[in-house]
Amino acid sequence: MCDQHKNVTATRVLSVSSAKAPFEKTTIEQRELKPHDILIDIKYSGICHSDIHSAYDEWGGGIFPMVPGHEIAGVVAAVGSEVRKFSVGDRVGVGCMVDSCGECEYCLSGEEQFCTKGFIATYNSLDYDGNPTYGGYCQKIVVTERFVVRIPDALDLDVAAPLLCAGITTYSPLNHWNAAPGKKVAIVGMGGLGHLAIQFAHAMGAEVTVLSRSINKKDEALGFGADHYFATSDPATFTDLAGRFDLILNTVSANLDVNAYLSLLRVDGTLVNVGAPAEPNQYHVFSLIMKRRSLAGSLIGGIQETQEMLDFAAQHGIAPKIEVIRADQVDEAYDRVLRSDVRYRFVIDISTL
Amino acid sequence: MCDQHKNVTATRVLSVSSAKAPFEKTTIEQRELKPHDILIDIKYSGICHSDIHSAYDEWGGGIFPMVPGHEIAGVVAAVGSEVRKFSVGDRVGVGCMVDSCGECEYCLSGEEQFCTKGFIATYNSLDYDGNPTYGGYCQKIVVTERFVVRIPDALDLDVAAPLLCAGITTYSPLNHWNAAPGKKVAIVGMGGLGHLAIQFAHAMGAEVTVLSRSINKKDEALGFGADHYFATSDPATFTDLAGRFDLILNTVSANLDVNAYLSLLRVDGTLVNVGAPAEPNQYHVFSLIMKRRSLAGSLIGGIQETQEMLDFAAQHGIAPKIEVIRADQVDEAYDRVLRSDVRYRFVIDISTL
Repeated sequence: MCDQHKNVTATRVLSVSSAKAPFEKTTIEQRELKPHDILIDIKYSGICHSDIHSAYDEWGGGIFPMVPGHEIAGVVAAVGSEVRKFSVGDRVGVGCMVDSCGECEYCLSGEEQFCTKGFIATYNSLDYDGNPTYGGYCQKIVVTERFVVRIPDALDLDVAAPLLCAGITTYSPLNHWNAAPGKKVAIVGMGGLGHLAIQFAHAMGAEVTVLSRSINKKDEALGFGADHYFATSDPATFTDLAGRFDLILNTVSANLDVNAYLSLLRVDGTLVNVGAPAEPNQYHVFSLIMKRRSLAGSLIGGIQETQEMLDFAAQHGIAPKIEVIRADQVDEAYDRVLRSDVRYRFVIDISTL
Repeated sequence: MCDQHKNVTATRVLSVSSAKAPFEKTTIEQRELKPHDILIDIKYSGICHSDIHSAYDEWGGGIFPMVPGHEIAGVVAAVGSEVRKFSVGDRVGVGCMVDSCGECEYCLSGEEQFCTKGFIATYNSLDYDGNPTYGGYCQKIVVTERFVVRIPDALDLDVAAPLLCAGITTYSPLNHWNAAPGKKVAIVGMGGLGHLAIQFAHAMGAEVTVLSRSINKKDEALGFGADHYFATSDPATFTDLAGRFDLILNTVSANLDVNAYLSLLRVDGTLVNVGAPAEPNQYHVFSLIMKRRSLAGSLIGGIQETQEMLDFAAQHGIAPKIEVIRADQVDEAYDRVLRSDVRYRFVIDISTL
C-alpha cells in the first residue's frame, strides 16, 4: 500500500463530513498512476439527484467523508505507462463507474453496470482494494482507462458533464427498448433526465409525448423535440391517452400511480423506471395481464454505450440545458433541486473550487 | 331477434342463480346457427380457477344466472351454411373467447385476446348483440367457426379440455418470452397451470425449475419434466437461486413477495404473471433497476396460437393430469380447488349432466 501511494496527487475537493452536513473545501489524495490509469483535470462536474440521495444518506450505507459527483468532464493531465487509448490533453469524461471485474460475461459484453462482482461506483463505494472512492466535486481524479470515455469536439465540456449520468441513464433504455420511427414514446417528468430523454427519443425518430405535472414546461418541451405534451394533473390525460404508448420512460424519482401509467401502454408496451424511490410502490397484476404489458427498470449503461451516446449527442446536437454554478453554491443548488427549481441541470465550474 | 331464435337449440346446463349459489341443472337455449356457426356436442368441460372467481363474483360484474366453463372439448354436431373448415363429427375445442371484432390489428394478426373492441368471453359476458354468453358446463354450444380449434387425434377429449385455458395460458408466455434451449425457466406454483407449464417449458428445451411451497410435489414435478425443484417455504431457496433465471412464470393467483421472486432473475430476466389476484401487490423499483428486470403479465393466447399449442401438445405427448367428475360433483370440486386438493385439474364428464 505504501508503495502505491508514494507519488499520490493531492487534490482539492468539496466534501460532506456526514449525512446532510454542508459542503466544505478539503483535500484528499488520489492514488499514484498505475500502468492503465489516467489522471484527469476535472473542468466541470454535474449535480445528479442521486448525489443528494447519497450525501443525505437516504439509501443508507453512506461512506463519509463523501465527495459526490459522477458526471465528470475534463482533460487528461497524465497517463500511466501502458495507456495507449488516451493522451495528455484529450477531452474526456467519467460517469457512474470507475471499475469492474473485467472478466464476467457482462464486462466482456460491454455492460459493466451488471458486472457479477459488482462495479465500483465513482464515489461512496469501496474499490476492490477496500479504499473509498471519491467523486467529481474535485479538481483531479485518477481512473483506469477502461472507464474513461472521449468527449467529442462538438460537445462543450460543461454540457458534456451531465450526459455522463443523466444522458446514459435515458439513452440506454430508449436504445434497449427500441425507441425508433413508428414508435410512440412517452417521457414522464421533465427534469434533468427527462429533458435529455426527449431529445434522445426525438433524435432516434420516435413520436415523443411529454407527461409532466403541469402545463408550464410545454413550450420548452416542444423546443427539445417533443411532438405532444400533456399535464398529468389533468385526469383527462389518462383517459385520452389510454393504450397509446409503446414505451414510457419514467424519469421521476418519486412513486407515481403506476397502474394509471400502465393503462397508457398499448399491447406489449413497457413502462421503464430509471428513478429509484426509497419506498415501495403498489401495482395491480391486472394492469400487466390485460395487454401483456411490462414494468421494468434500467440502470445507467455500459462504457461502450456511453461512448456511443456521447457520439450520438454530438452528431444530433443534443445537450442538456444547464446552469453553471460556483463551488460555494452547491448546498443552495441541492435545495433548489429538491424544490424542482432547476432548468435542467446544475454543473459545478471546478475552476472555482 | 325473433327470427334469430326461431330454430334455437334447448340444452341442459349447470348454472348458478347468484354469486356462491350451488350449481343446479337447468335449461338454456342456444341461438340458431348463423352461416359461420358451429353446433358442438360438448363431451368434457374443465374447471378453471377463474370459474370460481366468476361464480363467486369475486371480480365483480357477474351476470347471473351463470353457466361457467371455458375449457370445452366436444364433437361437431352441425355446421352453418358457410362453414368450410369443419364437418360434422370433427373433434373440436373452444377456449376463453367466442368472438372478437375480426377487423382490428390484433384480430388480423391472430391475437384476438387483445381485440381493441374487446373479445367476447365464453361465459359471463355480453355478445355484440347484448345477449349473455353461457359457457361449457353444458351439453351443446354454438360458436362461430373462427373461435373453434381442432383437437388432434392423439389427444383424448378429456385431457384436451384443460388445454383450452390452462394450456394456452402457460404455452403463450413461454412461447412469447422464448423458453428454449439454453434458457433457465422457473415455474412458480404446481397446480392446474403449473403442471402444464412444466411440460411445455421442458418440451421447448428450457432448463426447468419448479418453485412450489412445499417439497411434496417434487417427484411428480420431475416426472412432468422438471430438472430441479425447490420449496419456497425454505428461505435458502431465495439465496441459493439469486440471479438464476431468464424467465419466471408465476401461475399462482395469490399475491407473492414479488421482490423476492424478482431477485431470482438474472440480467434482462422477466417475471410473468398469469394468475390475477384481486388485491394489489407491492414492488420495489430497485428490484427492477439493478438487473434491468421486467415484471409482466400475459393473458391466454390467440386462436392461431391455441391451435399451435394443441398440435405441440399432441406432438410432444403433453397432457394435463386430470380427475374426471360427474356433473353433481362440481360444488365439491370447487371446494377442493380452493383447498388446493386437486392433482391437477377437474374435468366434468358432460354425459352425466
